[in-house]
Amino acid sequence: MNVVSFRPGPEDLAYTFGGRPAVRRIAPGTILELYTEDCFGGRVRGPADLPSQVCEFPYLNPVTGPFHVEGAEPGDTLALHFVSIEPARDWGVSTTFPHFGALTATHTTAMLHAPLEERVWVYEIDAEKRTVRYRATRGDFSVELPLDPMHGTVGVAPAAFEARMTITPDAHGGNMDTPELRAGVTIYLGVNVEGGLFGVGDGHARQGHGEVCGTGVEAAMNTVVAVELIKGVATPWPRLEDDEHLMSTGSARPLEDAYRISQHDLVTWSAALTGLDELDAYQLVSQGAEAPVGNVCDANYTMVAKLPKAYLGGAAVYDSAHRRLRELGERYLASR
Amino acid sequence: MNVVSFRPGPEDLAYTFGGRPAVRRIAPGTILELYTEDCFGGRVRGPADLPSQVCEFPYLNPVTGPFHVEGAEPGDTLALHFVSIEPARDWGVSTTFPHFGALTATHTTAMLHAPLEERVWVYEIDAEKRTVRYRATRGDFSVELPLDPMHGTVGVAPAAFEARMTITPDAHGGNMDTPELRAGVTIYLGVNVEGGLFGVGDGHARQGHGEVCGTGVEAAMNTVVAVELIKGVATPWPRLEDDEHLMSTGSARPLEDAYRISQHDLVTWSAALTGLDELDAYQLVSQGAEAPVGNVCDANYTMVAKLPKAYLGGAAVYDSAHRRLRELGERYLASR
Amino acid sequence: MNVVSFRPGPEDLAYTFGGRPAVRRIAPGTILELYTEDCFGGRVRGPADLPSQVCEFPYLNPVTGPFHVEGAEPGDTLALHFVSIEPARDWGVSTTFPHFGALTATHTTAMLHAPLEERVWVYEIDAEKRTVRYRATRGDFSVELPLDPMHGTVGVAPAAFEARMTITPDAHGGNMDTPELRAGVTIYLGVNVEGGLFGVGDGHARQGHGEVCGTGVEAAMNTVVAVELIKGVATPWPRLEDDEHLMSTGSARPLEDAYRISQHDLVTWSAALTGLDELDAYQLVSQGAEAPVGNVCDANYTMVAKLPKAYLGGAAVYDSAHRRLRELGERYLASR
Amino acid sequence: MNVVSFRPGPEDLAYTFGGRPAVRRIAPGTILELYTEDCFGGRVRGPADLPSQVCEFPYLNPVTGPFHVEGAEPGDTLALHFVSIEPARDWGVSTTFPHFGALTATHTTAMLHAPLEERVWVYEIDAEKRTVRYRATRGDFSVELPLDPMHGTVGVAPAAFEARMTITPDAHGGNMDTPELRAGVTIYLGVNVEGGLFGVGDGHARQGHGEVCGTGVEAAMNTVVAVELIKGVATPWPRLEDDEHLMSTGSARPLEDAYRISQHDLVTWSAALTGLDELDAYQLVSQGAEAPVGNVCDANYTMVAKLPKAYLGGAAVYDSAHRRLRELGERYLASR
Repeated sequence: MNVVSFRPGPEDLAYTFGGRPAVRRIAPGTILELYTEDCFGGRVRGPADLPSQVCEFPYLNPVTGPFHVEGAEPGDTLALHFVSIEPARDWGVSTTFPHFGALTATHTTAMLHAPLEERVWVYEIDAEKRTVRYRATRGDFSVELPLDPMHGTVGVAPAAFEARMTITPDAHGGNMDTPELRAGVTIYLGVNVEGGLFGVGDGHARQGHGEVCGTGVEAAMNTVVAVELIKGVATPWPRLEDDEHLMSTGSARPLEDAYRISQHDLVTWSAALTGLDELDAYQLVSQGAEAPVGNVCDANYTMVAKLPKAYLGGAAVYDSAHRRLRELGERYLASR
Repeated sequence: MNVVSFRPGPEDLAYTFGGRPAVRRIAPGTILELYTEDCFGGRVRGPADLPSQVCEFPYLNPVTGPFHVEGAEPGDTLALHFVSIEPARDWGVSTTFPHFGALTATHTTAMLHAPLEERVWVYEIDAEKRTVRYRATRGDFSVELPLDPMHGTVGVAPAAFEARMTITPDAHGGNMDTPELRAGVTIYLGVNVEGGLFGVGDGHARQGHGEVCGTGVEAAMNTVVAVELIKGVATPWPRLEDDEHLMSTGSARPLEDAYRISQHDLVTWSAALTGLDELDAYQLVSQGAEAPVGNVCDANYTMVAKLPKAYLGGAAVYDSAHRRLRELGERYLASR
Repeated sequence: MNVVSFRPGPEDLAYTFGGRPAVRRIAPGTILELYTEDCFGGRVRGPADLPSQVCEFPYLNPVTGPFHVEGAEPGDTLALHFVSIEPARDWGVSTTFPHFGALTATHTTAMLHAPLEERVWVYEIDAEKRTVRYRATRGDFSVELPLDPMHGTVGVAPAAFEARMTITPDAHGGNMDTPELRAGVTIYLGVNVEGGLFGVGDGHARQGHGEVCGTGVEAAMNTVVAVELIKGVATPWPRLEDDEHLMSTGSARPLEDAYRISQHDLVTWSAALTGLDELDAYQLVSQGAEAPVGNVCDANYTMVAKLPKAYLGGAAVYDSAHRRLRELGERYLASR
Repeated sequence: MNVVSFRPGPEDLAYTFGGRPAVRRIAPGTILELYTEDCFGGRVRGPADLPSQVCEFPYLNPVTGPFHVEGAEPGDTLALHFVSIEPARDWGVSTTFPHFGALTATHTTAMLHAPLEERVWVYEIDAEKRTVRYRATRGDFSVELPLDPMHGTVGVAPAAFEARMTITPDAHGGNMDTPELRAGVTIYLGVNVEGGLFGVGDGHARQGHGEVCGTGVEAAMNTVVAVELIKGVATPWPRLEDDEHLMSTGSARPLEDAYRISQHDLVTWSAALTGLDELDAYQLVSQGAEAPVGNVCDANYTMVAKLPKAYLGGAAVYDSAHRRLRELGERYLASR
């Protein structure tokens, strides 16, 4: 088993997809053990650490990577299976941030309102109990919520010579902020440049749908990723697979376009997998698919279209990469 | 137990909320046994029944009602608990419809494309097995999906002397098309005119999130509703409650505004229930809420914001109307 | 010359299109002399008259009408030519209003911000000099702007048994708030119900594009309208014509859909007038049309697509109704 | 007078803003004589040259540049005055392009429609008569439209280490496609990286508002730009100035956000220039500003907010850079 560990130093952190050299070259089949910092670079640690004061634009949402996958060329697909995603600290934070979030004026939904108050919430993470504890900042209300670790940001270098801030989700992946990107899931990303150049970051101990205040329970993570390269198969938008579901994503504004992209991809993908014509697949997705919301706060909004594989007659996708990677991940976990 | 049965004749069907006299007056506490026609008025029964040919605008999406609730006045809230929603026939239909749906040009997302092909899918409904059967129209692909009956359209007469097509969702309810409106759920609707004048229609044997092709598995329903009137409590947008969750809805365009309305209502409602300040409630909802999509095809799009009651310390809402109505519904079911 | 004068009493004012009986029946060919109140019903007369205090929902944006045009049936078109629009008072007002406008959170673009400050600006209107005077409320800055009177709200009873608040623009017209609706212009409105039932209101002494703060220079008006009925010709969305241009309108959200509707109508209308195929007309409109913004603050946003008639080879529209009505208006003005 | 001429070879053309070294270093005060290719790189020359066949993604919308302005640092502003923009050939072209434009499904407004037909229109440009001639592709309809040359694409390297396709407009400028960017206009662009690194391209012989079919009358241009550097003054979004107006731009989706950004900038800019408080400036802009549409087809949509300088009491902006550059341009033209 080919295992590579990488813990970035401060100077290694990436703030874009594209425009940076790889931090490591890895072979397909590698197990990557990664440390990822939280979206604030670990600088927000308590109520007094207002992010607009302790963080500096554009040094936000750092990503661990990029990793060059040997042999990856434009037109191929990277399959990244999240073997495990575990909080690296026993706390996480969430904050409001001036003019960022879904229930506030922003720099693009520009208004004459002063920003909402900037405030920090610190969560205790109990990795044993699998909970995070919310505590109100005013009064003593407190409640435990389930721990449900995920990565907000996973992507590759974009096409067309672009470099994009890690905070923006688009066809190359990026800051999709979907809770569906949890351990046990494989993400498929279309390769745009040689080596693919993927990165991973922005762990959340948990997150609601849409990340309405602009942040999840932001947490540094120890994450294990199993990597495979699928040659000669293109992937237009990031897709996800778990044991039970296929998922397409779309990231755009307005939100209905994110929905359209994800549903359109799921319809055409389902048609290709089953031999159904497009209208028959449209009908099946119409009755069978869920549409979990990713983010409604970032530069593009993200929606996921999610269909049980059982509804497709058990069609295998990407040459069963998910099953293989899942097994590889299990062997890795058993070997530790 | 005060039980009223109502099966509308063709001339009783309503195509607007507002602008029509009540078909019945009922007292709070009544159990209503209703028959509702499907959104095509039952005229689409097979592959040859193209809705644009067998249906006539504006005689679409008929609603059973309106019902005048004695004592209901503007500023009050109606609580309608869905005791049961059962398909009235052993089949349902879904269709494409010219320039209607999320993956097609429409009359408002106006484009130069010809309409997608109009086609009808007939589903067998097996009420015993609790399944519906999808059959492709081209080829022999077929699959069973879970039966999950719901009403797409529930609403009251709007404010401001308006009358609105039943197909449009807005603050008065209407065609929200959310699968969350299933049996076991109580919907709260703000009263705008004397008597409230509520109606129910557009049953679906099941529906995917967003109703992407424009229709669910459309089905006539036998539905039982338990009705309560909550005096002196206003409700700005329709809210739902089941045994485990509180839900706020929003209906608007673009889709992010539907999301904003629903999340804003859930935040301010949660703050009111718990005593949290608005930012603390914003934070709690941000990490705790799901956002199931209603429709992304109607004149307004609909989103739901859904929070486990457990996260709010078990606060009772609307004076525990849901619990009372649920018990009333159980007594009714036991008495049959 | 058939001249009818109508000055509504307070009880005559309409707050919806649809749902009300006509205030007068008139014959095609009639000249109507109308008085219209401002959008506040004349209640905001100085800095202390905050609209949220002196006005009461839903008694906003009153319209003079509806007028029943004899012989008008669904499928016909009303042609309303604005012979003159003159301020009825020597002042107008503009205001902010809580949660209304384009640079503020609203009830649908729902956010956690407190409303912007509510404030009143009083404009002196000089009908001789054709100016209005802006005065800052803080400091002594002042400037004269051109007087350019228009009606924000013109419409007919909607289709499908609907009644809509006068403040909402849609396919039936309503509160489009386009400065293109000035004297010298003919508006074409599709008839949905017997008599058409049109109304006129919401005069502005002038208005910027988009009405960004939510209101123009609101003014009561003395307005003269020449009315014609075009039998057997349907009009899908309100269209305008002046001596030099044809204009299509669209009202929807998001704003690109208002743009799409208006451009789509102008393309298909141009194709019908010239015999061009749709793509050739698309190309001509692409290079030749302007797109003046109507409103970006109402329940639907409004865009106008505007093409010089000269680019269409001088094709006559609606059987030259504009020319005839313009001549009728000139005879009327000469006769006074 | 410091005059620099630059005609790019094929290998010099830039397809991104950011991510490329400068083609020239110039001093503030320079007059730049530029040749710019059309958006198709000159490959579409007749009806048979379908862009999807003769062009290759991502080699679209080439820009001449980038130019490094000596002394330019983040936080400064570049002032680029367009002295002249003249078609370099006696023809231009416009086309439909698969899944691109405002009245078609696109890759983000994803639908199940096949693309509209791809077609090319060739325009004769008569630089003497100042006309372009439209010719229908089906039938013999033809009409002359005014020549009104402009650049669709002007921008600088973006902030945050980004590189963006030239086809995308955003805060750094880019493919705004506004007809307001014609000769006689100065554009102000905020500097994000050392040298600013500006580029110019995508000339249109003319364009309608919104570029509804996706392209203007695309034309290679000989363009003269006078360049000035304004130290220590930041510019959040591109701004324009002509002799009579100030203009703010915004580029975003949905279109109302482009409107909001541009109006918000114009309001706050007007307040800063006049000393008005924000609400007083909001009011003045509300009644005084026009909102010409830029594009409604690109990756972001663009709106312009345009106010007569006379309404601001003649306040000078950017230290009168426009007047100085205009005079420099006149001296240059007189000297040729």
